[in-house]
Formats: sequence, structure tokens, C-alpha cells
Amino acid sequence: MQVTITGAGGFIGKRLVRQLLAKGTLADPQGAQRPIEKILACDLTLAGLPEDPRVSKLEADTSNPDVINRIITDQTSAIFHLAAIVSVGAEEDFDLGMKVNRETTRALLERSRHLGKKPRFVFASSVAVYGGEMPPILEDHTAPTPQTSYGTQKAICELLISDYSRKGFIDGRSLRLPTIVVRPGKPNKAASTFASSIIRDPLEGREVSCPVPADTSMFLLSPRKVVEAFIKAHEMPSEKWGMIRALQLPGLTLSVRQMLQALQEVAGQTVANRVRFVPDPRIEKIVYGWPTAFRATRAQALGFTADASMHDIIKAFIEDDLNGKFVS
Amino acid sequence: MQVTITGAGGFIGKRLVRQLLAKGTLADPQGAQRPIEKILACDLTLAGLPEDPRVSKLEADTSNPDVINRIITDQTSAIFHLAAIVSVGAEEDFDLGMKVNRETTRALLERSRHLGKKPRFVFASSVAVYGGEMPPILEDHTAPTPQTSYGTQKAICELLISDYSRKGFIDGRSLRLPTIVVRPGKPNKAASTFASSIIRDPLEGREVSCPVPADTSMFLLSPRKVVEAFIKAHEMPSEKWGMIRALQLPGLTLSVRQMLQALQEVAGQTVANRVRFVPDPRIEKIVYGWPTAFRATRAQALGFTADASMHDIIKAFIEDDLNGKFVS
Repeated sequence: MQVTITGAGGFIGKRLVRQLLAKGTLADPQGAQRPIEKILACDLTLAGLPEDPRVSKLEADTSNPDVINRIITDQTSAIFHLAAIVSVGAEEDFDLGMKVNRETTRALLERSRHLGKKPRFVFASSVAVYGGEMPPILEDHTAPTPQTSYGTQKAICELLISDYSRKGFIDGRSLRLPTIVVRPGKPNKAASTFASSIIRDPLEGREVSCPVPADTSMFLLSPRKVVEAFIKAHEMPSEKWGMIRALQLPGLTLSVRQMLQALQEVAGQTVANRVRFVPDPRIEKIVYGWPTAFRATRAQALGFTADASMHDIIKAFIEDDLNGKFVS
Repeated sequence: MQVTITGAGGFIGKRLVRQLLAKGTLADPQGAQRPIEKILACDLTLAGLPEDPRVSKLEADTSNPDVINRIITDQTSAIFHLAAIVSVGAEEDFDLGMKVNRETTRALLERSRHLGKKPRFVFASSVAVYGGEMPPILEDHTAPTPQTSYGTQKAICELLISDYSRKGFIDGRSLRLPTIVVRPGKPNKAASTFASSIIRDPLEGREVSCPVPADTSMFLLSPRKVVEAFIKAHEMPSEKWGMIRALQLPGLTLSVRQMLQALQEVAGQTVANRVRFVPDPRIEKIVYGWPTAFRATRAQALGFTADASMHDIIKAFIEDDLNGKFVS
């Protein structure tokens, strides 16, 4: 079978490609495990993607209709749609966010629909669909009230994916991702990027500014867990999803102080001392709008799990992305 | 000031035009009451619209971009967007529903945005944004999980209107309408149309089929109350709306049996006997997916009210639409 991955050059996309290559098979639209013959990986840049005869790379803009026709073909049985303009990016350029986050998803759904074989379609949504005035603890049935254009666009895509699934056009599954830590490499334009920077940079020997106060709560999941969740979401039979195709993933609710405490306990005081607090009101404003306490009842019942601790998340980052070494 | 009304030829649109003409003024974007100089009324057909020098009629398809440029002009300060493909229509023709209900709303929002003066934009959403697995009593923060394409499209438009408002492009207000009874005239393609037919047709001397069982619950509001709510929604200052721009209106939760009981009490047994039960599984399926018990806390706090009783709703219909007479 053929698998399409958008945003395949991102750090989660690359891990997903590696994990799918290692797994070797995926459920086809009828639910039977089939060998993965080809992964059509698309992103603006695809540096660092594994070299494997099964991986077909296309460096291109997924918001281009011609590109969509090339990456989803008659042979495509599974689509993982990860490409997006992230939160600050979509806030700074409303029209670009609408185009890439909303219209491109719609175009991918239309293309998938017209394959006529109800491909499984896994979508990276976000906890950013929530915001503003909310109950103290969010439940599966709490209404998304996004306070960013990014969150709005994700919520719209979730609704489309549910309706396309209900109509039998695709077999969709949307996962609302917590903030993913620890991202390797450079910061991106997500308002949440500091949550990775305050762990990554000190471990790599660099000083770093934290733009929010230490008592700011975050809702976190590791790259390992999120890739596991994407594959699990794909593999689950359609009837387990039922009518509601968007799912809040579980995560760890931790304050920045607790995150840094774990950093100190894993890597020592010298490393933890590399973090300074330099408030950035623009980031604070976006981050304060995000919810941090969830009762992810449905996801847990379906077997999705959070990381055991921040210590585990940091250790996994050191292992996976720093070759087991950090600058003490 | 100039006011645009889409769907102005519908039975609610016509009442809204009449009510605005009677009121004579509306709040401008700064909140000051201004005389209504012009109402740009648009719909495919506009028969029965009041003749008034302030009403400018355009019989045209609102989903046509040229039409949008003509009905929203530099002079427009208020937009009431009522035009839609209703539930069964959008279910039968997915692409048409997406075009008219989703893309046209987006185009109206874009046009309104580029006026650069943040016009007030009142949108007719629907209780059909809810559906499927839901808590027994819905609250303001209950997630929309639409089980029709119509409900999906309405939920998407609500999200867009909230985000356009948050960004300061427009000053939007979306009202989730209960099932409106009693509609005069012919049945339409809404799955809920029977709720009007089972009152209207017997009062006009015709036998009628009810496609759902007598114990089916409905969530109802009268045309008088909904027009009152549209105007109130427009007039409320922006700060009262705050961040959440979609609001569930209160309504009466009644079974079909209670509706017919009221009909008998208002109009007599002979009239009530004109209703026969002829199940239609397609309608039953759609209607069963709708919620019927709401705690419309926020709407009530803002002063929106439901009708006092089904009796009142029926009497208002006889008064407003049957010139005070029915066929006994």
C-alpha cells in the first residue's frame, strides 16, 4: 500500500516516516495489514528524511493543487496530514494561515474523497482549538472556543474531517495534540516553542530566555508518544471511532517550574541555571489562552497514553536527539 | 445607515425587513443609533417583501461573488446573513451545501472585512450544530458534534465569525436557532419542516402526515421571538459578546404530543384530528440526532427569551399569518 505524509520534513513527520518504515505494514481501508510499498513524503524541505527505497520525496508546497494531485494517487490508502502554518505564523499572516491550514486540508479531503475507496486520513489537530473562557477541567464534550486563527483553522478542519467521514468519503481521525516537547533543532513560529527551548538549549550548553512566568501551566506530550498516537489512530478500526472523529490526546499538566525542576534533577543545577525569565507579553497572551487541565476520558479508554513524567521526556530527548550526551 | 439582509425572501427574512422598517434605526459600528436609510434585501426570490422606499431589492444568488460586491458596499454598516441551503438540501447535495453554506459565508466575511470599519455581522446558525453522542442536557460550553453537513457548515461559519471578530475584521454575532414554528406557506427542505406543517396545515383545513412518533422531542422558538433575537443580537454592544460570538438561543422543549395537545386546546379536536402519523425513517434519523434539552444560561443572562407556551406560539401564528382565522 501507499502512504502519503504532508509536513514530512518536520520533526514529527520525520519520526513518523522512520516509525512507519520500521513497522513495515499498515491497515488498508478494509482493515487488513498490508506491507508499506511506498511513502510519499511531502514538505517544503525534506532534509534529514531517512534514505529508503520505499520513501519517495517531494519537496513542494502542499497548498499547490498540482502537488496534491501528485502526492495522493489512485494507489494511496493512508494519509497523514501534518503540514501547517503554526500558531504565531497564522496569527501574523491571517490569509496565509487560512490558505495553508484550512483550504489545503479541504483540497486534500476532496482529493481523498474522489479516490472512491475511503482512505484513512489522520489529521494533526491541536489543543489550540480550546481557549478563552473555559470550564476549569476540560472534558471530551467541551466546546472548542479557539482564541487564535491557528486554533480556529484546526477546529474547522476537524469538523470537515468528521463530516467527510460521516458521509463515507474518507475514514478520518483527528488528534488534538498537546504541546510537543522536546523539539530538536531550532525554535519554530509556534507560541509554544519555548517549552522545548527551555529544555533543549540548556542541554546543548546554551543560555535561553523563558518568555512566560514559572507558574505557567503547560500540557505536554513527547515526540515518541505523539508518533505512537498517530499510528495507533490510523490502525484503530473505524467502528471504534464512531461518529466523533476528533480526539483530545492525554498529556502531562506541568508548570514551567516543574519542567525546570525535572531538568535540574536529570541534568544538574548548572544546566538548569541556563534558563532566564524574560517576559514576552505577546507569547504570554497566546499561551495563557490555552487550557492545561484535561480529563481525556475517551482517549484513555481507547488506549492512548501520556508520558509517565517530565524526567522521562527529557531522558528520551537526550537519548533520541542528543546521542545520549548533554553539556553539563 | 445601510443594512444588508441575505435570505431576505425567506419567511424570517421578510419579518426581519418589516421589523427593521418599523424600528427605523439601528446601532452603527460605534454603537450610536442611526436611521436606516437603505435595506439591501437579497434572495433568489423576494416575493412578498414590503414595498418601502428604504428597501432595495436584488433577486440574485448570494453565492455569486458579483452579487456579494453589490449587496455589501462602502455604505454597509450591518449585515444579517440568513441565506442557506437547509438540512435535507445540504445532505442531498454535499457540494452545493458546502458552496452556499460555507464558501458564501466566507466570501461575505471577506467582503465585510475589507470595508475596514468592522460592520456588525449577525449570522443565523442552528441547533443542528449539535448531534450524536451528547450529554443529556446541553450547556453553553458543550461541543458541537454535528451529524449533518448543514450542521457542520453552520459550525464552521460560527468559528470563522468568531475569529474574524477576534481579529477585529468584523463585529460578529452568531445565533443558534431552535426549530422555528410555525412557518407559514409551503414546507421547505428542512428536516424539521414537519414541526410547522403539523400545526399550519390542520389550521388551514388540510390533513397532514407527521413523519416522527408523538413522543419525539423538539426544541422550538416562534418567528416573532427569532426576529426579536436577531435585532437584539445586533444591538448589543460588542463588549457584552466578549470572546465567544456564538450563542444558543433559549427555546421550548416539547414533544410532538404536547404540540398537538396545544393545537387541540387552541383550535379544537376537529383541527387536531387532521394529523396522521406516517413514519419517515429518513426524517426520523435526522431529527433524532438533534438535542432537545438546553440550559441556555448565557442567552438568558443576556436577556434572550423563549416563548411562554406552545399555545402562545399557535395563537401568534393565527394572528400574524392567518389574519386571525382558522378552519375549524
